[in-house]
Amino acid sequence: MTNRAPSHAFTLVKVGGNVLDSETDLQEFVNQFARLAGRKVLVHGGGKLATQLSQRLGLTPKMIDGRRVTDAATLDLVVQVYGGLINKKVVAMLQAQGCTSVGVTGVDANCILARKRSLKNGIDYGFVGDVVSVQAEAFESWAERGWVPVVAPITHDGQGQLLNTNADTLAHEIAAALAERGHEVQLIFTFEKPGVLLDAADDSTVLPTLDAAQIAALREQGKIHSGMIPKLENACEAIQRGVKSVVLGKATDLSRLMQGTGGTKIS
Amino acid sequence: MTNRAPSHAFTLVKVGGNVLDSETDLQEFVNQFARLAGRKVLVHGGGKLATQLSQRLGLTPKMIDGRRVTDAATLDLVVQVYGGLINKKVVAMLQAQGCTSVGVTGVDANCILARKRSLKNGIDYGFVGDVVSVQAEAFESWAERGWVPVVAPITHDGQGQLLNTNADTLAHEIAAALAERGHEVQLIFTFEKPGVLLDAADDSTVLPTLDAAQIAALREQGKIHSGMIPKLENACEAIQRGVKSVVLGKATDLSRLMQGTGGTKIS
Repeated sequence: MTNRAPSHAFTLVKVGGNVLDSETDLQEFVNQFARLAGRKVLVHGGGKLATQLSQRLGLTPKMIDGRRVTDAATLDLVVQVYGGLINKKVVAMLQAQGCTSVGVTGVDANCILARKRSLKNGIDYGFVGDVVSVQAEAFESWAERGWVPVVAPITHDGQGQLLNTNADTLAHEIAAALAERGHEVQLIFTFEKPGVLLDAADDSTVLPTLDAAQIAALREQGKIHSGMIPKLENACEAIQRGVKSVVLGKATDLSRLMQGTGGTKIS
Repeated sequence: MTNRAPSHAFTLVKVGGNVLDSETDLQEFVNQFARLAGRKVLVHGGGKLATQLSQRLGLTPKMIDGRRVTDAATLDLVVQVYGGLINKKVVAMLQAQGCTSVGVTGVDANCILARKRSLKNGIDYGFVGDVVSVQAEAFESWAERGWVPVVAPITHDGQGQLLNTNADTLAHEIAAALAERGHEVQLIFTFEKPGVLLDAADDSTVLPTLDAAQIAALREQGKIHSGMIPKLENACEAIQRGVKSVVLGKATDLSRLMQGTGGTKIS
């Protein structure tokens, strides 16, 4: 373990797929993110670009139990699209706003080590990586230099193999690793909805706050949309590991989410 | 201008296309590069992957006077392949050899600013960037942290636009920028040939040394292969700008090029 760095406030923002697919929404999000004060990290997902490119290349997506299997061709594709195209476009947009940023994946500076997911019930999910460790010192080092890391959801196993890793998971793992180093970390999951909704079809039903017991109850009642469940699980785990607060909400409302006047806050 | 950092020895290696296309040669090159002592930077080119992907996507390469025009679709493709796939694969291979590296393009940390090439004789080369400035402090900062920057040949204009930039040019611009900061820089251009050949068809005709006058004479006599001319121009310009030595040779002979027992040395 290296020496502990002085404690700082970090804001870690995850921006999801649909926002990346809309030039207007992405620009609005980038403008608001660039203006956030203090040390910050951006983690982005994939959007539809990978699926579109996959179709143009005639790759057939392999699905097992509704989960995509990452074969070698799909891995190459996500490394290109997530680690290349999307990552560098977002970084270029941030630089244009005067926010000096550096686009990275888990392989860069060895910052996120993962393990290829082992067979589950005999199913091989391919080149999917489960996070083993986050080198928080790398993120501290970038922040110290005044650079904002923009993280694409690609990791590696340390033996030369790149791996595809869920972006929500990466976001909470980086947030938790920074919290465990003594930093005050706020984690914000942004997507196209204004928060966790009681009625998925009605944007006015945002739940302003949720705790672990309420999440469990809503889940039992089947009131939480399936896509939201892993995000809420990630949020609860982040809180348990010392992240100060987790907020979920609309990417283009980022400033309001930061001010506490929008979204769903998990405590 | 920020404060001048203490002077250090830097080795800047450019690795070219054909080496990237051969798994065996690339692994051998990576093994030798990982073992080089001291501060170092790796700049890589593109290889055949971009051309192959372009063909699979049915893009028609636009050529004007034998030069490729980078339209928007081609730019996306090179950002993906150079900045994503090749860059992250090379970084993962280096990490596996214990060489902590960080994959970057010119947009990352704002390290290489370029300008979209203006019309030349009415010809628009598209999204091609001519280097405006290299922020040598970023490279010093990575080296200070013990990280080896692995640079893909993509730059930006500071206004959000990514640009395609020649990798040989990037290599000599980074080398010159570090030399101008007072560092002792050695620049090594590697490719598939053992050096500058007097007879392109005979690998035993390597010229061990060349100076600017000899290069001009050989060029006049039509003895220098056309692909070698821009490399030699880059080499001469690097020397003029304070780079201590430039060596050209075979990528899989990197250790010998470093020891001065192979390749062509420009003085």
